[in-house]
Amino acid sequence: MNMQLKTREIPRIAFVMGDPAGISAEIAAKLLADRTIHEKASLLVIGDRRTLAEGERIAGVETNIKVVTEPGAAILGEPLFYDLKNCDPKSVPLGRATQAGGAGVIANFRTGLELARDGFADAVFFTPFNKQALRLAGNPYLDEIHFAADVLGYTGPCSEFNILGNIWNARVTSHIPFKDVVKFITVDNVLNALTLTDKTMRVAGFTNPRIALAALNPHAGDGGTFGTEEIDILEPALARAKLQGIAAQGPFPADTVFLRARAGQFDAVQTLFHDQGQIAIKALGFDQGVTVLGGMPVPVCTPAHGTAYDIAGKGIASIEAAKRAFAIACSMGSGRMLV
Amino acid sequence: MNMQLKTREIPRIAFVMGDPAGISAEIAAKLLADRTIHEKASLLVIGDRRTLAEGERIAGVETNIKVVTEPGAAILGEPLFYDLKNCDPKSVPLGRATQAGGAGVIANFRTGLELARDGFADAVFFTPFNKQALRLAGNPYLDEIHFAADVLGYTGPCSEFNILGNIWNARVTSHIPFKDVVKFITVDNVLNALTLTDKTMRVAGFTNPRIALAALNPHAGDGGTFGTEEIDILEPALARAKLQGIAAQGPFPADTVFLRARAGQFDAVQTLFHDQGQIAIKALGFDQGVTVLGGMPVPVCTPAHGTAYDIAGKGIASIEAAKRAFAIACSMGSGRMLV
Repeated sequence: MNMQLKTREIPRIAFVMGDPAGISAEIAAKLLADRTIHEKASLLVIGDRRTLAEGERIAGVETNIKVVTEPGAAILGEPLFYDLKNCDPKSVPLGRATQAGGAGVIANFRTGLELARDGFADAVFFTPFNKQALRLAGNPYLDEIHFAADVLGYTGPCSEFNILGNIWNARVTSHIPFKDVVKFITVDNVLNALTLTDKTMRVAGFTNPRIALAALNPHAGDGGTFGTEEIDILEPALARAKLQGIAAQGPFPADTVFLRARAGQFDAVQTLFHDQGQIAIKALGFDQGVTVLGGMPVPVCTPAHGTAYDIAGKGIASIEAAKRAFAIACSMGSGRMLV
Repeated sequence: MNMQLKTREIPRIAFVMGDPAGISAEIAAKLLADRTIHEKASLLVIGDRRTLAEGERIAGVETNIKVVTEPGAAILGEPLFYDLKNCDPKSVPLGRATQAGGAGVIANFRTGLELARDGFADAVFFTPFNKQALRLAGNPYLDEIHFAADVLGYTGPCSEFNILGNIWNARVTSHIPFKDVVKFITVDNVLNALTLTDKTMRVAGFTNPRIALAALNPHAGDGGTFGTEEIDILEPALARAKLQGIAAQGPFPADTVFLRARAGQFDAVQTLFHDQGQIAIKALGFDQGVTVLGGMPVPVCTPAHGTAYDIAGKGIASIEAAKRAFAIACSMGSGRMLV
């Protein structure tokens, strides 16, 4: 098998280096030093080579990655490092949010997304960012999904998905005031969210994902005793979703639906507002999970944990969540190639 | 030490037998067969003696408890069984909700509460009920706390508390539609809830309980970006609570506040609506927790788990949560004696 053929069979991943003040560089070094990941994807790592070198030193590994100045070369299949020379680790102290660190991350992420947009990558993976550092560097976006959609020039439906073990979680509403949640819980919005979840999970390799819809009211309204949105909105949305061939069920009381998913009854939980899902998955150990920005032309995947400034530089950061995020990026990159 | 003196030093617990179709009888038998609990409380068990006999048979234990027909005798300190002769286990098949089982439970619970109201007990403990069975028997109350408050003739502030390990959880609002939550989140309501939590936990033995108040909006509103209730309502309520000497802090993002409590930073989490707390504590394993109905003249305690119809009669039910609920009933019964 020649290189050229291989690159057509495995996905091309834009591997974006995260905040240099945290554990991102050492995680990237550990991942890249694992030769098995190079069999799963053609990699183009994007960042400052000096930052990765610092990560290699901290992690005690060598990546021997080849540096290029032309990103297009990545399609040849050999793992390559696209050196932006934009962030000298000497200018970024470990363990805190800085403007310099944030600026480097913004440039790396933008470059990775632009490469994917222009057809040089099938998925984007990134090691953790720090929101405060991004803000110090003048990041104008509310969150990563708005950043990504804007760079990709995408204006259609998209959503953040949180994945814990085998459970996917997506939301109908996200960063809005609690008092406004009810007015966004409409049949159309719920149906669109279920449709997006189904579509995104199919890209990730599920053939017919079983999606549980969380209820809005305590005890799912208890037959209308504590609220009627289950009857008036959620059940009609589920009926329409089923007509579209989506394996959606519910509405289920929100305080036990994740326990049922964990027991294997569902592949995904569709929640209605930010904390409804976040409370559950954080309590269940989501720090070891994965975040996917789905629905856009290019999937974006990252470990759920943050930059972990408190243990940066110690070489003790676990790469399990990053490995899982990378694997999902590969699945979704492949799925997208097949779509 | 004579009996008379002993009874003045340990609390008197009205021990209410729960649903005979579930694991309640075997749990009661196992608890009562443990002689160490008799050193912690003067017990009056309330139910049908034949039901307890069935529990003893299933659990393979003997309680040798003395049967009385006059409840007042319980103050003598010796564990006694007040036999209401109201529920022949032969009339209640194991493993499902029945009218007969529900009617027995209603009579037992009412009797226990009346005895406490009339000064014969310092706290009420009960083994699990089944809401459907209670409904079949015509129970007119929305939940146990309305039942208890009504029998006790109490109309002041009271609340359900959920206790998981060392974490207490109480709510500002409970069984109301989600869309109405916002209008009940007022400075006065939040302050009253914090005051009630503080008072109830002091009765349970905390000298200065550290109470974390959960935020309403995602990321606690992120400085007013996603909602302003944190600034307009929760912070003023906390300021007033602190002036009253309550160790309340917050508001903290709802999706991580329970993890912080579990890490030992707080003794309690005050949540704002039903599922905000229920999602977290159920995900964290609340099935092994305890429910306390607090604020009323008499505390009422029960294990958090249900009647477990699926394992009823097998003798395999764990009594850990029931032991913990019983211990809290003893603490609160003692605390109430000291108030």
